Amino acid sequence: MNLTPDSKSSARSAECHRNDDERYLSIRQASRRLAGPLSAEDCAIQSMPDASPVKWHLAHTTWFFETFVLGPRQPGYLPFKPLYRVLFNSYYNAIGDRHPRPERGMLSRPLLEEVLAYRDHVDAAVLELLARRPLPNETAALIELGLQHEQQHQELILTDVKHLFSRNPLKPAYQKQWPLTPIQSRKSEWISVGAGIYEVGHSGPDFCFDNETPRHRVWLDAFRIASQPVTHGDFMEFIEDAGYRRAELWLSAGWDVATARGWQAPLYWERRDGAWWSFTLHGEAPVDPHTPICHVSFYEADAFARWAHARLPTESEWEAAAGHASLAGNFLESGALHPLALREAPGDGMLAQAFGDVWEWTRSDYGPYPGFQCSAGAVGEYNGKFMSGQYVLRGGSCATPSSHIRATYRNFFPPDARWQFSGLRLARDAE
Amino acid sequence: MNLTPDSKSSARSAECHRNDDERYLSIRQASRRLAGPLSAEDCAIQSMPDASPVKWHLAHTTWFFETFVLGPRQPGYLPFKPLYRVLFNSYYNAIGDRHPRPERGMLSRPLLEEVLAYRDHVDAAVLELLARRPLPNETAALIELGLQHEQQHQELILTDVKHLFSRNPLKPAYQKQWPLTPIQSRKSEWISVGAGIYEVGHSGPDFCFDNETPRHRVWLDAFRIASQPVTHGDFMEFIEDAGYRRAELWLSAGWDVATARGWQAPLYWERRDGAWWSFTLHGEAPVDPHTPICHVSFYEADAFARWAHARLPTESEWEAAAGHASLAGNFLESGALHPLALREAPGDGMLAQAFGDVWEWTRSDYGPYPGFQCSAGAVGEYNGKFMSGQYVLRGGSCATPSSHIRATYRNFFPPDARWQFSGLRLARDAE
Amino acid sequence: MNLTPDSKSSARSAECHRNDDERYLSIRQASRRLAGPLSAEDCAIQSMPDASPVKWHLAHTTWFFETFVLGPRQPGYLPFKPLYRVLFNSYYNAIGDRHPRPERGMLSRPLLEEVLAYRDHVDAAVLELLARRPLPNETAALIELGLQHEQQHQELILTDVKHLFSRNPLKPAYQKQWPLTPIQSRKSEWISVGAGIYEVGHSGPDFCFDNETPRHRVWLDAFRIASQPVTHGDFMEFIEDAGYRRAELWLSAGWDVATARGWQAPLYWERRDGAWWSFTLHGEAPVDPHTPICHVSFYEADAFARWAHARLPTESEWEAAAGHASLAGNFLESGALHPLALREAPGDGMLAQAFGDVWEWTRSDYGPYPGFQCSAGAVGEYNGKFMSGQYVLRGGSCATPSSHIRATYRNFFPPDARWQFSGLRLARDAE
Amino acid sequence: MNLTPDSKSSARSAECHRNDDERYLSIRQASRRLAGPLSAEDCAIQSMPDASPVKWHLAHTTWFFETFVLGPRQPGYLPFKPLYRVLFNSYYNAIGDRHPRPERGMLSRPLLEEVLAYRDHVDAAVLELLARRPLPNETAALIELGLQHEQQHQELILTDVKHLFSRNPLKPAYQKQWPLTPIQSRKSEWISVGAGIYEVGHSGPDFCFDNETPRHRVWLDAFRIASQPVTHGDFMEFIEDAGYRRAELWLSAGWDVATARGWQAPLYWERRDGAWWSFTLHGEAPVDPHTPICHVSFYEADAFARWAHARLPTESEWEAAAGHASLAGNFLESGALHPLALREAPGDGMLAQAFGDVWEWTRSDYGPYPGFQCSAGAVGEYNGKFMSGQYVLRGGSCATPSSHIRATYRNFFPPDARWQFSGLRLARDAE
Repeated sequence: MNLTPDSKSSARSAECHRNDDERYLSIRQASRRLAGPLSAEDCAIQSMPDASPVKWHLAHTTWFFETFVLGPRQPGYLPFKPLYRVLFNSYYNAIGDRHPRPERGMLSRPLLEEVLAYRDHVDAAVLELLARRPLPNETAALIELGLQHEQQHQELILTDVKHLFSRNPLKPAYQKQWPLTPIQSRKSEWISVGAGIYEVGHSGPDFCFDNETPRHRVWLDAFRIASQPVTHGDFMEFIEDAGYRRAELWLSAGWDVATARGWQAPLYWERRDGAWWSFTLHGEAPVDPHTPICHVSFYEADAFARWAHARLPTESEWEAAAGHASLAGNFLESGALHPLALREAPGDGMLAQAFGDVWEWTRSDYGPYPGFQCSAGAVGEYNGKFMSGQYVLRGGSCATPSSHIRATYRNFFPPDARWQFSGLRLARDAE
Repeated sequence: MNLTPDSKSSARSAECHRNDDERYLSIRQASRRLAGPLSAEDCAIQSMPDASPVKWHLAHTTWFFETFVLGPRQPGYLPFKPLYRVLFNSYYNAIGDRHPRPERGMLSRPLLEEVLAYRDHVDAAVLELLARRPLPNETAALIELGLQHEQQHQELILTDVKHLFSRNPLKPAYQKQWPLTPIQSRKSEWISVGAGIYEVGHSGPDFCFDNETPRHRVWLDAFRIASQPVTHGDFMEFIEDAGYRRAELWLSAGWDVATARGWQAPLYWERRDGAWWSFTLHGEAPVDPHTPICHVSFYEADAFARWAHARLPTESEWEAAAGHASLAGNFLESGALHPLALREAPGDGMLAQAFGDVWEWTRSDYGPYPGFQCSAGAVGEYNGKFMSGQYVLRGGSCATPSSHIRATYRNFFPPDARWQFSGLRLARDAE
Repeated sequence: MNLTPDSKSSARSAECHRNDDERYLSIRQASRRLAGPLSAEDCAIQSMPDASPVKWHLAHTTWFFETFVLGPRQPGYLPFKPLYRVLFNSYYNAIGDRHPRPERGMLSRPLLEEVLAYRDHVDAAVLELLARRPLPNETAALIELGLQHEQQHQELILTDVKHLFSRNPLKPAYQKQWPLTPIQSRKSEWISVGAGIYEVGHSGPDFCFDNETPRHRVWLDAFRIASQPVTHGDFMEFIEDAGYRRAELWLSAGWDVATARGWQAPLYWERRDGAWWSFTLHGEAPVDPHTPICHVSFYEADAFARWAHARLPTESEWEAAAGHASLAGNFLESGALHPLALREAPGDGMLAQAFGDVWEWTRSDYGPYPGFQCSAGAVGEYNGKFMSGQYVLRGGSCATPSSHIRATYRNFFPPDARWQFSGLRLARDAE
Repeated sequence: MNLTPDSKSSARSAECHRNDDERYLSIRQASRRLAGPLSAEDCAIQSMPDASPVKWHLAHTTWFFETFVLGPRQPGYLPFKPLYRVLFNSYYNAIGDRHPRPERGMLSRPLLEEVLAYRDHVDAAVLELLARRPLPNETAALIELGLQHEQQHQELILTDVKHLFSRNPLKPAYQKQWPLTPIQSRKSEWISVGAGIYEVGHSGPDFCFDNETPRHRVWLDAFRIASQPVTHGDFMEFIEDAGYRRAELWLSAGWDVATARGWQAPLYWERRDGAWWSFTLHGEAPVDPHTPICHVSFYEADAFARWAHARLPTESEWEAAAGHASLAGNFLESGALHPLALREAPGDGMLAQAFGDVWEWTRSDYGPYPGFQCSAGAVGEYNGKFMSGQYVLRGGSCATPSSHIRATYRNFFPPDARWQFSGLRLARDAE
């Protein structure tokens, strides 16, 4: 499958963010810093077709600037290595041939140090371009798109390296110290939202991906939504109540997948001496019941909701409910790299942990909004062509850069994907 | 995959149709009549996991009455053969074990004649039950559900035997005479529908499947919809314009499927001496450009629409537009067993061929309506558990019994399915 | 895999058997008689790619006479149906296209009755040809080859229908009455054979397949061979001694196969209430410990031998030891269709049950004898091209026609094949 | 598949080679030197399940000494890391669990530098053991076995890294300079060998693997064998004569493999502008017609021989003919790392290039010699359990250490393997 997470959108905003050198360099350097704890070997290996080597992420994000910004817009720019155009193309048919996705792990060459030199080369050229103000709007928009794209890959670097390390019997830790203090979780409550016409989707001058547009009206029946995400503790109850063995709780396709792959718990869990452990970016750790559940597929989220006499919210419901929630949360920058227990409750009727911690599966398949138009040109392949067979997740996770998220943001993955920090929040029809 | 078309819903209507002996016998006998042109060998073979042997359809529809009606509601009823409970269970986990779907073609026994005896046995018992009036409402509803279920399998008998015969180099004809007179097709026009709140879904005392409920409100932006389905002639233009070789027209997942399976034309098409032929239930025949296209997947329908600078309608749009169209059309009873060219245009602003001829793919994934509740008990497995990974089709086909269809009817198949009589109708945003 | 059992050799003998009408008709009618207990449905289904539908066997053996005898040697002969040349070609590239082996079960048409008419048509033409004496030697040789070929397919009809019936939860019996009287088996003894140069392979005027030639010298070290085949009782000891769970007893490739497929016992065995049952052509029956083991693969035979501190004989050893054994035995004609316990011991130093009952796996891969030459023409594809990846079995089984076997006969199957009546006899190096 | 080349036999010789420190260190250091031109990334990646990462080879050969020598025979020895016992076990069931072969490429940790430290640790302990003379015979034999084992992996390091680099569009060179001077090849001649009883297999005090024993008698009919291996030029004629498209030249299993995988030429070949290029350890180079063909499977070798109206020799024939040939040749130490053209002819009736350049496929499946006994204990798994489904190759290649080969040496690979330096030499029956 080509369901590639390294892919979210084309710039819409007429008036883009201020893209000065600082912002550019700060985001680019953040990627490199993520590779800091890793060896060249760690960066070279691909642990499954859905994941990519860290080295590939570092090169592909650079290729994005070279291909979409420097090539067409920097006169006289010479590609660092012509063959990289093929090697580091993810899925842009309009750009031409590409190295097959499942073979990204075959590339011991270029070496990590060569990829870092490639980054330096391209950064220098982009900075040169940035120096020539005023920047045409379209160039500025493409640079902004490149930076947003880079942030998406920062999250993937973490989830992909977590998957790689989980396959190693030595269970390496990406980050040694365990930053989490156990905290008692609060009890979730139901928040009611009334029926009516709502507006969802993005509008305005700020950056967004094309798939968030146009802002449009939807009718929503009254519903209730949980004040907090489902926790690891909640999910352990589901397991103990034989949730993984009761076909009646599952979608048929989910049951088939769960049976065929022998799922008995979320990804990375292991039972030892009667206790649940899970593999984290800090190595193995006991499952903390007070933190939001993660590494569950859409199918597991859906089955859990049915078990809880609830359902997943639609993405419109989620957006209507979360639109006024605080954007603060546990993001990549916290360094926790793991969902955390809720410390303080938000105001009455406000969603807690709507942003950060874990992506929340919705009941909505990922499709075009009414009136949706793809961006023109090759960057139009960013989002539109993936609009089948996937489900929408909302709110960002502990691996998302904090400046990357907003209420209208639509992430999407196939219903069996589990290696992202994906969890859920319950909803119910109005009483 | 267990995405099984032999599966569409549980009775909702408190007050059911009049289910007298005549109606029961007439529908049951229609199934048997469909097997008339077939040998015992034709009825025994399974040509792919998605299809079932005709003999299995004849037995499974009988099993439905035995299991859901006679077993629980006819005191003293003895199962015809206890092992049939397993052999002919399609996917009801609540009923217990079942013979694996891909192995349905291993069952040379029971012989066709034994399955026919099974039908006689069950029919006699149901008629006896029907004689004991007044029938409890719930029993009547289950019998009605069984008859609707039987009609669904009548369509599948035809599509499955078509697939089987297509695999045989001898190209057998299910029905020898070719009933079609070439007719010049009319030009399709755009019909405009205004924005507003619409009600979709079923309500009222008539039968419907649970997945059509509850009737609910949706907001629709203004849109346009084609007065007629896309024709074989339209689709040949798409092929000649390299539609199957241009990645930019396709959803990514569709492109992967089309490439992997080498799709160059709809299912059953073959090019000989520069002309297109297709395999039909009457044997091979030249493709008639004036008839509605069929045997295309959702992916092909979507790519065609993009090529035509249009899109597929959502199921709400389809229902809003087709709600007042005539239910008359080319159904199973016409004996054509193939889509026909449009003979006369409907009134101004009315959809032509909305019902019959070909199922029309919509842009909507098959999911639960707001407030949807599965039916209670084992028949609750009829629809709800299939609500992921499939797309909705509307309107019925030339293989659908005419009394089986209505505007709110939701059929559903995975996006790569092609062996049903599946076509499409175009839509566009309002100008 | 194309490792096709319907394939064993081309006529060598200059002076063939007397091929009069009687012999021809008697062998042809025997095939048809084997289909007697079967319905048209039983004859149409293919239960796995290695097996073929009975109807296909009946047609393919007829095709053999039409293609190799009538076409080239009966002037003016018109093929029954031209398309049959493709449909019923097993693997002869020189003849042209062929219907894919795994699709043989898609052919509901031609109907069984049409295939029987095909047989009648070809039989009439062959009898006409036989009437024109004297027959050229080459024609006579091809007719003899066709009859030997037919006999091979008679065995396959039985093993393939057994496999089909075993897949049906109704467990149908090919033959209702159980003909076996339990008999106490005799104890096997070691027979010593001295070192020296031996001659193996066929020579002389009688029929043989090309793979049995030329007769040639081999050096054999002294060895011992068991007087009887291994019995079901012996094999149950192996199972109880954890034979299927001890990697050290198995060839590495065998262990991988056994593990991947979950083998815990020979094919068709099932444990119920602590007792072993096996599926036979007479339906299910308790495993009789006194009868020769069958339905084991080469890998299981080899593992059993290692467990018994013995080994399989090479095919030269087998032939050297069995050369003087009686050809009498439990063959197809006995009607038992199952291996039987030994009734009386042969003379001192003579192998018992060397012929009939079960094919005996040898340690020899199936390769060319020194000086081997394929037959010329398309029939040269009969044997030679299968000389890799298979192992030799000797002696015939309870499903082999008695007139079909001899000491030099080389049967061959891949090491994981289990659906033939395949067993083993132990050997050891000299003390 | 578990057909593992890192596996060839256990020490037989009662009186072993002199195993002093020098020999030990020289062989151990040679492995490390082979990794010299490689980066840590090059050493970490596994390019297919049959191949292993270089880092794994370096660790596994070390594991062999730790597990079979130090553990049982060095009192007080502490394993470097207990988990390595599992990680670097190749296929020894008797040792316990092992990391799955296809997952060897998941091990970014231990880092290459940690593996080198592991080597140092074990080397120090072995040298300490060697210092305590006199060494028990059995210990000496196990150390010798470990060194022979190490040499086998030296060859695999080269063939595996060649395969990895071939998958990279950058086409990296393992060694930059191209050492080959084109030389006109000599014409091959037929050498006749008379019929009679021959002795084959190893005897005597020198080291050999258990699969070379016991030395035993075979009868050979008279035959002829080519004085030289088949060359690249010979093979190009086969290709031009449509050798890859003529089914009649191929074994049936070979034809299926060649068709399914689209083979049109040996592994690593590519046609550009009408000329053949091949990927070598020096990067891409034009195919030199005068050098021995390599990277062909058994199936291709067999088809070539049939096309040339010849056959492959049996392994007994090869050994009988090559027994007196010079052991000198183009081995690993020459640094060519590619087969070379023949420079000078050997004496009359002597085989040229019997040793070095390319392994030569024989017609013999890899099985036990008469009287063969596995070595006792875990090292008994070295050879015996692989004796099915593989063919014997003889003579060593340009990647084999020169001190590792002898006339009785039996290498073995599955018939579809192509990534070794495997070629062939023709044979014919006597005229």
